[in-house]
Amino acid sequence: MTVEAAADETKETGRGEAFSDSVFAIAVTLLILEIRAPTQHDIGSDGELWHALRDLWPAYLAYIISFATILVTWINHHAIMRLVGRTDHTFLLLNGLLLALITAVNFPTSLVAEYIGHAGQGDRVAVQVYTATFVLLAFAFNFLWWYAASGNRLLSASATPAQVRAIGRRYRFGPLFYVAAFLLAFISPLASFGLCLLLALFFALPFDNRAEARR
Amino acid sequence: MTVEAAADETKETGRGEAFSDSVFAIAVTLLILEIRAPTQHDIGSDGELWHALRDLWPAYLAYIISFATILVTWINHHAIMRLVGRTDHTFLLLNGLLLALITAVNFPTSLVAEYIGHAGQGDRVAVQVYTATFVLLAFAFNFLWWYAASGNRLLSASATPAQVRAIGRRYRFGPLFYVAAFLLAFISPLASFGLCLLLALFFALPFDNRAEARR
Amino acid sequence: MTVEAAADETKETGRGEAFSDSVFAIAVTLLILEIRAPTQHDIGSDGELWHALRDLWPAYLAYIISFATILVTWINHHAIMRLVGRTDHTFLLLNGLLLALITAVNFPTSLVAEYIGHAGQGDRVAVQVYTATFVLLAFAFNFLWWYAASGNRLLSASATPAQVRAIGRRYRFGPLFYVAAFLLAFISPLASFGLCLLLALFFALPFDNRAEARR
Amino acid sequence: MTVEAAADETKETGRGEAFSDSVFAIAVTLLILEIRAPTQHDIGSDGELWHALRDLWPAYLAYIISFATILVTWINHHAIMRLVGRTDHTFLLLNGLLLALITAVNFPTSLVAEYIGHAGQGDRVAVQVYTATFVLLAFAFNFLWWYAASGNRLLSASATPAQVRAIGRRYRFGPLFYVAAFLLAFISPLASFGLCLLLALFFALPFDNRAEARR
Repeated sequence: MTVEAAADETKETGRGEAFSDSVFAIAVTLLILEIRAPTQHDIGSDGELWHALRDLWPAYLAYIISFATILVTWINHHAIMRLVGRTDHTFLLLNGLLLALITAVNFPTSLVAEYIGHAGQGDRVAVQVYTATFVLLAFAFNFLWWYAASGNRLLSASATPAQVRAIGRRYRFGPLFYVAAFLLAFISPLASFGLCLLLALFFALPFDNRAEARR
Repeated sequence: MTVEAAADETKETGRGEAFSDSVFAIAVTLLILEIRAPTQHDIGSDGELWHALRDLWPAYLAYIISFATILVTWINHHAIMRLVGRTDHTFLLLNGLLLALITAVNFPTSLVAEYIGHAGQGDRVAVQVYTATFVLLAFAFNFLWWYAASGNRLLSASATPAQVRAIGRRYRFGPLFYVAAFLLAFISPLASFGLCLLLALFFALPFDNRAEARR
Repeated sequence: MTVEAAADETKETGRGEAFSDSVFAIAVTLLILEIRAPTQHDIGSDGELWHALRDLWPAYLAYIISFATILVTWINHHAIMRLVGRTDHTFLLLNGLLLALITAVNFPTSLVAEYIGHAGQGDRVAVQVYTATFVLLAFAFNFLWWYAASGNRLLSASATPAQVRAIGRRYRFGPLFYVAAFLLAFISPLASFGLCLLLALFFALPFDNRAEARR
Repeated sequence: MTVEAAADETKETGRGEAFSDSVFAIAVTLLILEIRAPTQHDIGSDGELWHALRDLWPAYLAYIISFATILVTWINHHAIMRLVGRTDHTFLLLNGLLLALITAVNFPTSLVAEYIGHAGQGDRVAVQVYTATFVLLAFAFNFLWWYAASGNRLLSASATPAQVRAIGRRYRFGPLFYVAAFLLAFISPLASFGLCLLLALFFALPFDNRAEARR
């Protein structure tokens, strides 16, 4: 690939990446608004504020899980965009669908923050909606990559087959894990919520990278 | 056009595009804040949370329509900025007007999310305000393009007449469709809301691109 | 100036500009959250929603004034950053002060949206706080420019004395106008609010540019 | 370092910086939402609005402290990223941890805004949580730098040992100061809050820069 062609590709995909990055960054930052400070109205003394803050643990966990999941999706988006050299209208739309789901994570996050930890009062439904959002997110991500990669449709001339295969291998099982979390929510909402935390940490840790390097 | 002139043009329009992209990205992401999680206070059991979530359908639809409309406007903004090589103060202002309307979509979105689905209780007014915002948005977009393109005022030296004509043709009918949706709101708010959804999908789908390629 | 030196300058100021642009973009977009949709709880019929929306006129005007003022400040920031070739810690701090004030506009905007149009119930104080914010903003902007320009401290080698003088001339009177609006608020809050609208439109319109071109 | 290698490094770290900048910018701008305008419902006259606005002083101070602290962290992040030439998965994660904490500052800011100035009613806990967040932030920042710098792991080829040592020296004591503020909160929440303000101003003022230049 000539230097000129590479520059054209960078310009071509640059604005889409910048827009995507902004949406990821805003979605991840807005999550904090779902942890609402207990008001003085509800609280009397120092001890009671500690209690009120302690009772917000589902909100903190939901914040951590959603933040990590969006961050990992961003890192992965970053990884595939390094191999994508061109965009077309369909790619922009599929990317838009992914961004809509990234943004939408905010809503089920506030649901689990509100309903987890109160057995029989909506926690099952809240976790089902939460995990269903991650299932959709994982499918949308894989679909975006499949669209770009299948038949080398939008890949950069500098992307090697080995890189392309490695990406495919890494993301193939994401949807399955989240489907498992979704199904687990029918049995135990709390266990499903815990699995989401484990998955976020598992995908965040550079474990798989090292494994790949060893191959 | 020399490489140097092209680089100058890129620098000239670059910061305006980055600012616009940020506003589009934030406006589209803030929409999710309009879908508010039902509080525990209102809900007793899992079944009731399902009902409460089901009753939020106008909020979900409004989110989808507004997200798609802003995303499509961003893609179109992207398309015209590739043909625009210079900016002037008036262009920045017209662009600012477009951005103000993009941001303002948030407010009528929360109106329709609140009032749709409750006949005779404000849904007519809510949809009128919603569609009127899209009418203004479509006019502002066409006006921005007309200002840049008329007499080649701000077009890049590399923009071909065929590209310019294709853009003009594609956006000319946008305002008409939204005026139709606005008028329909007087007869049936729900039908008008549905038309907005169809228009968002119609403009999002790459249908017109393919049609143009075939000519 | 060599091409290399120009590239260094661009890199040097680039990240500060991008950060500033993001803050401007977010501040301008968050303004819409201050216009809150009337809830179904307060409203009975279509007619009443019209009334409720009509009574929000101070919120719409405050949105327009604040949006236009922040947008114009951004355009002006853009104009001076084209002449600034280097940054130092003090410049970044003064820029941070400007950004803090840009962000802070959100709060007095919600004050005037809440209190304008209800004589004797806080509108005087609300407009005083609103105009005082614009006074501080105008001073911070002039101070930032003065710091960069005095003794050519941080100007780009490519900035001509004529450009530098033109910028100084254009912004010198901004603080005076807003001090006048602040003082007017003691006599008539509504007139002061109207003056803010006129000033936003006056600074937005490309009137002064044309005047300068004719000289 | 060749021009090509420098360009590769810039591309490599560019998207991560842009994402970080966006999160910093959004986090700093969202802070303003924690200062809520007193409603007409609570206020009768102009004088009462003055009183209500005066009583919001903890919210203004918390806004200033948090804004300055995030801004200074951004400036410092900017400084270390100029010396970092490559990123890896672990660096992106540590950076993500820093960004999560930057975003999270919003929550304790709303806590101190709500509880400071009402002795014995939660202000101790609020300031403890506030200062603990800054302790974590300072440690995360130092850890990020340590990871990049130790053994020259990710430093740019153009980073000189003197620059690297200067950075290390500058940030080493940040965590200690915030641990002191945290401990002070057990004795006097108000004094600890004041120390946070002093620290924000101390780190913001270009004092240490000048000191270093003199060495």
